[in-house]
Amino acid sequence: MLNLRSVFYIVGFLLVVEGAFLLTSLGFSLYYDDGAWRVILFSGLGAAAFGGAVMLLSRGETTENLRARDGYLIVTIGWLALSAVGAIPFVVHGAIPSYTDAFFETISGFTTTGASIMNDIESAPAGLLYWRSLTQWMGGMGIIVLSLAILPLLGIGGMQLFVAEMPGPTKDKVHPRVKETAKRLWGIYAALTAIETALLYAGGMSFFDAINHAFTTMATGGFSPKQASVAAYDSPFIHYVIVVFMFLAGVNFTIHYRALKGRFGEAAKNEEFRTYAAVLGVATLGVTAAILHYMDLGVEESFRTALFQVVSMTTTTGYVTADYELFAPFAPLLFFLLLFVGGSAGSTGGGVKISRHILLFKNGLAEFKRLTHPRAVIPVRFNGEAVGQDVMRNVTAFFLIYLFLFVVGAFALALTGLDFMTAMGASATCLGNVGPGVGGVGPVSNFAAVSDAGKWLLSALMLLGRLELFTALVIVSSAFWRR
Amino acid sequence: MLNLRSVFYIVGFLLVVEGAFLLTSLGFSLYYDDGAWRVILFSGLGAAAFGGAVMLLSRGETTENLRARDGYLIVTIGWLALSAVGAIPFVVHGAIPSYTDAFFETISGFTTTGASIMNDIESAPAGLLYWRSLTQWMGGMGIIVLSLAILPLLGIGGMQLFVAEMPGPTKDKVHPRVKETAKRLWGIYAALTAIETALLYAGGMSFFDAINHAFTTMATGGFSPKQASVAAYDSPFIHYVIVVFMFLAGVNFTIHYRALKGRFGEAAKNEEFRTYAAVLGVATLGVTAAILHYMDLGVEESFRTALFQVVSMTTTTGYVTADYELFAPFAPLLFFLLLFVGGSAGSTGGGVKISRHILLFKNGLAEFKRLTHPRAVIPVRFNGEAVGQDVMRNVTAFFLIYLFLFVVGAFALALTGLDFMTAMGASATCLGNVGPGVGGVGPVSNFAAVSDAGKWLLSALMLLGRLELFTALVIVSSAFWRR
Repeated sequence: MLNLRSVFYIVGFLLVVEGAFLLTSLGFSLYYDDGAWRVILFSGLGAAAFGGAVMLLSRGETTENLRARDGYLIVTIGWLALSAVGAIPFVVHGAIPSYTDAFFETISGFTTTGASIMNDIESAPAGLLYWRSLTQWMGGMGIIVLSLAILPLLGIGGMQLFVAEMPGPTKDKVHPRVKETAKRLWGIYAALTAIETALLYAGGMSFFDAINHAFTTMATGGFSPKQASVAAYDSPFIHYVIVVFMFLAGVNFTIHYRALKGRFGEAAKNEEFRTYAAVLGVATLGVTAAILHYMDLGVEESFRTALFQVVSMTTTTGYVTADYELFAPFAPLLFFLLLFVGGSAGSTGGGVKISRHILLFKNGLAEFKRLTHPRAVIPVRFNGEAVGQDVMRNVTAFFLIYLFLFVVGAFALALTGLDFMTAMGASATCLGNVGPGVGGVGPVSNFAAVSDAGKWLLSALMLLGRLELFTALVIVSSAFWRR
Repeated sequence: MLNLRSVFYIVGFLLVVEGAFLLTSLGFSLYYDDGAWRVILFSGLGAAAFGGAVMLLSRGETTENLRARDGYLIVTIGWLALSAVGAIPFVVHGAIPSYTDAFFETISGFTTTGASIMNDIESAPAGLLYWRSLTQWMGGMGIIVLSLAILPLLGIGGMQLFVAEMPGPTKDKVHPRVKETAKRLWGIYAALTAIETALLYAGGMSFFDAINHAFTTMATGGFSPKQASVAAYDSPFIHYVIVVFMFLAGVNFTIHYRALKGRFGEAAKNEEFRTYAAVLGVATLGVTAAILHYMDLGVEESFRTALFQVVSMTTTTGYVTADYELFAPFAPLLFFLLLFVGGSAGSTGGGVKISRHILLFKNGLAEFKRLTHPRAVIPVRFNGEAVGQDVMRNVTAFFLIYLFLFVVGAFALALTGLDFMTAMGASATCLGNVGPGVGGVGPVSNFAAVSDAGKWLLSALMLLGRLELFTALVIVSSAFWRR
């Protein structure tokens, strides 16, 4: 049986939290006297009041008995409700007049995608830009809990395997484990955000710019309060700082947790971490060579430009310091393919994730051995342990459904009028929660020109990608509601 | 142990057969006095003599003891040797001066792909054009034996499941079963070719054009002796005849075999056949609607154009009666996606194949049920029977390796200078053995402008796709040669 009352109680609680976070935007709004303080104040109070009302109406059930099926609902409805309510101040103020656009921008925030429809970002009120960045930071907090505490319990997409070593009180009760994990990891997340803010401020950014970028770096979100994104800052120091924190945000947070306990060696032994670093290294070297060959830049700038864009796209952050489509004739295809890589499992990064690619690749190799040695048992190993058939099957299904959604999304976008390359880029970048794509939604463009139907479709892809597909898809399946 | 002598003995035999087939091109060469008879005569005799010499040098071993591992080698080396030798007359005559180009054209023939580098087809000698069509017809004969007699024994890519009901003497001995199956199915193949030739001739084609098109229709090859492909014939009758035979060529030949025995009802109950017909029907209706909406054509012509291009691309034939990229803004993406569908298993069609798509789709749905009912056993059924885990795993691996090769191919082509859309289209169409792609290798272009490196790469993709990936890939794996 579903505990629907508990589900709504928790969603109501999330809305109260959202209202409280929204109210913190008052600070910059008043400091910069941006004229948006009334909108922020009433939206924040309204969100909290609405959430409180939902809590009151659905109280009475204990949240200690939540089970897997409730988890799916909480997560999906929660992300949708936060986006639907979070979009309101943009519309009320008029910074984003259309609700479709505002919803797109806000779900792009909460899913830490970073795809934007704003054509003149700097002219928007500081308070609302801060709120826009904050949606990503909150989304990042949400995804850490989702991927490290909830999905492993549900056995979704191999997550139980990738993040299994996170200490937790019990395997059966959702509630205490979620609480424990959240407490530990949010501390790391907040601390890294604070350090990045300080470094960016030291590097010459205003405090406002620094905290906004720190929020959206650690969430691998990619919203910037500048129209030109990070290209607005002509400082190698700032670029390198952001690269380092994008890299850290794309690492499984249990590795950060253990590093904090002094267990640094474990990262070096972790297969996903090593592959993640290797993929970034190889792609950066390749792109550096291409830039040196095709463009008129020095060695350091070529390297930095390549490094920044490779890390930005692969970790699914989506900041831009240069138009990567111009790096080389093959650059559009390369960066399109990078949209499918993704960060590490248990990071704030989206996409397919490095660990799934590792398993799929190893399983492909194993299948050859099985063909030539049909009677041998040939297991796939991950971090030294044999991977169960059920996990392998689940990971494979994840990847195939991911590709299926990408194809359906791209084709539907083509029906709305987008060309071949733009449709593919938009579908891949939204499903992967990256931000910029290729073609008409490339690094120097945005999503403003996409039709309303296309924006709702892309919003759905962002949500599906962020919730590891199954979480959101399972609740529209008939099997979920039966029995 | 590999029976290398037997492997070479059979490859030698294939070359003798090739020489004999090549000599049949003398007929049209002499009839049209095309000046190529000497080249054809000496190439044919040379191929037969070379093959005979290989047979002599490797004789002594019986071919009764061939095993699976020998099968992989025979098939892969056989297809390569036929292409390498079959390319010679084009170069010697000068109709295709470059050996790279001639090899590309010939392996495109033997793999029944139909991708061409010829810019002025009509000016080539009739005898060589006939040989070009004949390579596809021979390739079609080869693929029928491969997919219906050899691969099921090897357990590759689910073939044992899709074509398991073909009667054969034993499961253990390759030799007698291959011979039996070949005899039965080649009869059907030849009969259908003869009927199509007669119908096309009756429809107004010259006998030369009729037999050439019948050869390349039944092989789902798509080479045409006309530069404009089937668009050169302004006859609805001819278009419909070709549609019918492309459709038949894309059907599992065991269904033809049983229909011949009067068991027509089995086709209607066959899941792959029904899906195949449904996919073609739905895509045709959609494209007809698009043509009616976007182009200024009548209803019959819109329907016929849509039907022809959908059947041509989905069966992996690749004939062209109209530039499908202009049908609608979304047409390039639609036809690009159709490159991944493929014909039925056990047909001459290439690509992923309908049956694999069915299994993958059903497995995706089953995975959802497994998520919500973790303890239930939820099998995937195909034609009413539960599909074993090993088959499902093999089919999944096939599809993932297929996509991997497509991506690697597209990226490598982009490195040679092809743009995003052209690189993707070229990789997909060659791996799927279709022929035309999208962008710079679209329906009204060809592969002449691709670099030499690109042509060798595409040749490899054609071979891999045609041999169901594993057959060719397994022999480059270290596991194959060990023990």
